Amino acid sequence: MPSKRRSTKAAVQAYDYDLIVIGCGPAGQKAAIQAAKVRKRVAIIDSREVVGGVCVNTGTIPSKSFKEAVLFLSGYRQRNIYGAGYRVKSDIQISDLTFRCNRIMTTEIEVIKAQLTRNRVDVLIGHASFVDEHTIAINSRGGEIRKTAANFVIAVGAVPHRPDNIRFNGTTIFDSDDILNLTKLPRDLTVVGGGVIGTEYASMFAALGVHVTIVDARKRLLGFVDEEIIECLQYQMRSMGLTLRLGEEVKSCAPRDDGQVVTQLKSGKVIVSDCVLFSAGRSSATKGLGLEKIGIKVDERGKITVNENYQTEVSHVYAAGDVIGFPALASTSAAQGRLASAHIFGIKEKGMDVPLPYGIYSIPEISYVGYTEQELTQQEIPYETGIARYKEIARGHILGDENGLLKVLFHRKTGQVLGVHIIGESATELVHIGQAVIALKGGLKYLRDAVFNYPTLAECYKVAALDGYNKMRA
Amino acid sequence: MPSKRRSTKAAVQAYDYDLIVIGCGPAGQKAAIQAAKVRKRVAIIDSREVVGGVCVNTGTIPSKSFKEAVLFLSGYRQRNIYGAGYRVKSDIQISDLTFRCNRIMTTEIEVIKAQLTRNRVDVLIGHASFVDEHTIAINSRGGEIRKTAANFVIAVGAVPHRPDNIRFNGTTIFDSDDILNLTKLPRDLTVVGGGVIGTEYASMFAALGVHVTIVDARKRLLGFVDEEIIECLQYQMRSMGLTLRLGEEVKSCAPRDDGQVVTQLKSGKVIVSDCVLFSAGRSSATKGLGLEKIGIKVDERGKITVNENYQTEVSHVYAAGDVIGFPALASTSAAQGRLASAHIFGIKEKGMDVPLPYGIYSIPEISYVGYTEQELTQQEIPYETGIARYKEIARGHILGDENGLLKVLFHRKTGQVLGVHIIGESATELVHIGQAVIALKGGLKYLRDAVFNYPTLAECYKVAALDGYNKMRA
Repeated sequence: MPSKRRSTKAAVQAYDYDLIVIGCGPAGQKAAIQAAKVRKRVAIIDSREVVGGVCVNTGTIPSKSFKEAVLFLSGYRQRNIYGAGYRVKSDIQISDLTFRCNRIMTTEIEVIKAQLTRNRVDVLIGHASFVDEHTIAINSRGGEIRKTAANFVIAVGAVPHRPDNIRFNGTTIFDSDDILNLTKLPRDLTVVGGGVIGTEYASMFAALGVHVTIVDARKRLLGFVDEEIIECLQYQMRSMGLTLRLGEEVKSCAPRDDGQVVTQLKSGKVIVSDCVLFSAGRSSATKGLGLEKIGIKVDERGKITVNENYQTEVSHVYAAGDVIGFPALASTSAAQGRLASAHIFGIKEKGMDVPLPYGIYSIPEISYVGYTEQELTQQEIPYETGIARYKEIARGHILGDENGLLKVLFHRKTGQVLGVHIIGESATELVHIGQAVIALKGGLKYLRDAVFNYPTLAECYKVAALDGYNKMRA
Repeated sequence: MPSKRRSTKAAVQAYDYDLIVIGCGPAGQKAAIQAAKVRKRVAIIDSREVVGGVCVNTGTIPSKSFKEAVLFLSGYRQRNIYGAGYRVKSDIQISDLTFRCNRIMTTEIEVIKAQLTRNRVDVLIGHASFVDEHTIAINSRGGEIRKTAANFVIAVGAVPHRPDNIRFNGTTIFDSDDILNLTKLPRDLTVVGGGVIGTEYASMFAALGVHVTIVDARKRLLGFVDEEIIECLQYQMRSMGLTLRLGEEVKSCAPRDDGQVVTQLKSGKVIVSDCVLFSAGRSSATKGLGLEKIGIKVDERGKITVNENYQTEVSHVYAAGDVIGFPALASTSAAQGRLASAHIFGIKEKGMDVPLPYGIYSIPEISYVGYTEQELTQQEIPYETGIARYKEIARGHILGDENGLLKVLFHRKTGQVLGVHIIGESATELVHIGQAVIALKGGLKYLRDAVFNYPTLAECYKVAALDGYNKMRA
């Protein structure tokens, strides 16, 4: 056993591992692989028998697979072409929608497993808990084992926050981790919480023809996203028949005798629906980790605070991913895990000064990179906008998305691109063109002069750049 | 009437227009609009009653709309998920497939018309023919009118080349302009010519379950595309049940008594099919333009030769688009038209030194930008490749495209990105990320360090960059 007093470089070989990573989602995987690439001895602990974390097993992958199935089976994309009543399947079952999820999850798990094995990362299954600053106990059905390491990355992720006064039953009152266990499609669904997860699921069910109501105490969905984009989202969601109850708080929510769930709002309104999805934020899964034993404090939602290098108060213990809070996206979590590990082993890595994209897989899809108009206004940066609507370009018509919008924000004097905001088909893919231009300092001129394949959605960048130039002349 | 002797700046006002553009496809439109933006007097002449040229009316737009309908109605994208027998419609009619074409074409025509009107470009309908170096006659049912201009851009496009020995009948023997007039889906189709148009239509019909045979005298499809990508294309086309007869020449092709078309190859092979599509190149539509009167020569396929500024031998007469030959894509034609017009009016424009993307809307889709491996090898530039397969990334599984491939070519010493080659879903969109990196000199490091939305196909760039780095270490 190594001394608890102080960890020095010389003492490293005395530990079982150079790095133990707790949690096997995107942050944990990348932290482990980064270390393995520089020939460090690495173990990764996960309490599930399967790797992948929430991302693969209940979160990102299932919800995105679900979305793709919704888009396809509902004929959503084709409605502008074949008419509003168009459906591929008239009687869509949940099993039709989750059928592909299972296949995709299985494949993803195999890919991750193979990657960990190939990089010689030990995978330890069991519940992890700190014994001391360098020792961790792993409890599984086989009993307890203990392992030591010079360094740790905590990447245990987060779980849906479950308000105390709501009785979740997994049949009519769900959280976002069990919503896809629904056995049949509800006629109506109440979604409490208009954050990323709530908005994504609400729009997917609405596209399936379910009558959806979103309740949120805030005045708009997705507070961090550009206002014009959210206006466009809310408009389109309402056009799909979805009801938004914004600036409203839930007083109570319980099933009544006939099985219907009654949600009462503080304003006195009552919503009766087949099911309710609570997506009122997430709590970091730090309970039972024994953090108190090594002096790491967490906030009321279990969140760990880290510095710019992802270090906790205990300098050889790092944290990355959903466990440290916003933005809690698979993409950013993976980057955080990699950077944490790089910092531990002194690998020089460019930090997150490159612009980060945000992707929301709602229907319609949203993605952006760089500043919002609100941020630029607040910082008094003189910007102008260039806007392209999907309905102005051929590809928009071919895809049947005539509501999509791409907005480029640029500096009025230098033409430097400051932000790109997209709502519509393929937004999460398209944003990476703007991201490259921002990162590589291409400016509006590049977007205007580049030749784009015809017909593509990428042409929106050119149309937006031309719009921007026209506005500057004015 | 202006003097025929010499055009000088002072004489410009004596002409009806500063610029007359002949042909209203992508090249013509952009040439006209570019001139109108700098307040020049512009007219555009088209022999059709509708604007848009081949692009909108029989070429790009109809074929791309057709493709989208094929992908959707055949359930092609879903076959990897729901099984090979999956179809949205079991009995697909041509009318199902062209239904959306008509709507999209109508919309596109409206968009172009509005743009021309808004920019105050006169649209003259009729057949154009040069009378002298500055005068053009326009013949329509209403008779002949004459207009003069200081400058001209010839953007008349191209028509399918029809070999003399083939009797096209528009019912069983088609060219690429009339193939979509088919009234019902054939059981089998022979495609003569494995260029862009032949490959696109062949793959679309094959995806619909039609038994397709491609015949080409060359040893591979699409000679200008990277070899590995074509290997992948040919493999996937054959997997769809398509037959490739490469290195084979057609001796004769004629309908027999029962209506079936018999195609005899020089090698002695015989192909019997319901229909034959000839797509053996295109001829520039210069016949009847009166070019001989102003001393502009064309080659045996009607092609006009231009210099780097798109000027013909007659310096105030320019040509752009399909009429000047390869690559004859809507995107490049539009850029040529714009640049020609900019040169005429002395507007400083960046030429085509920015990397041009090429897009082939086959199934699977192909797109690339920059050099091919063959070009780099020939030029003895020491490059390395980084490869990502769609099956390695989550988005590939979600979309059901497990055969897609993205290849980045980069300089072994500098990491400079030299080319990006993609085959698979959304290739024509994805290539623009690589294009921005090449144009803005981002290099492999940018692609490795950038954070991509998860799950997206754009992640292929990161996976390819990591693969590239691993190879460099070896």
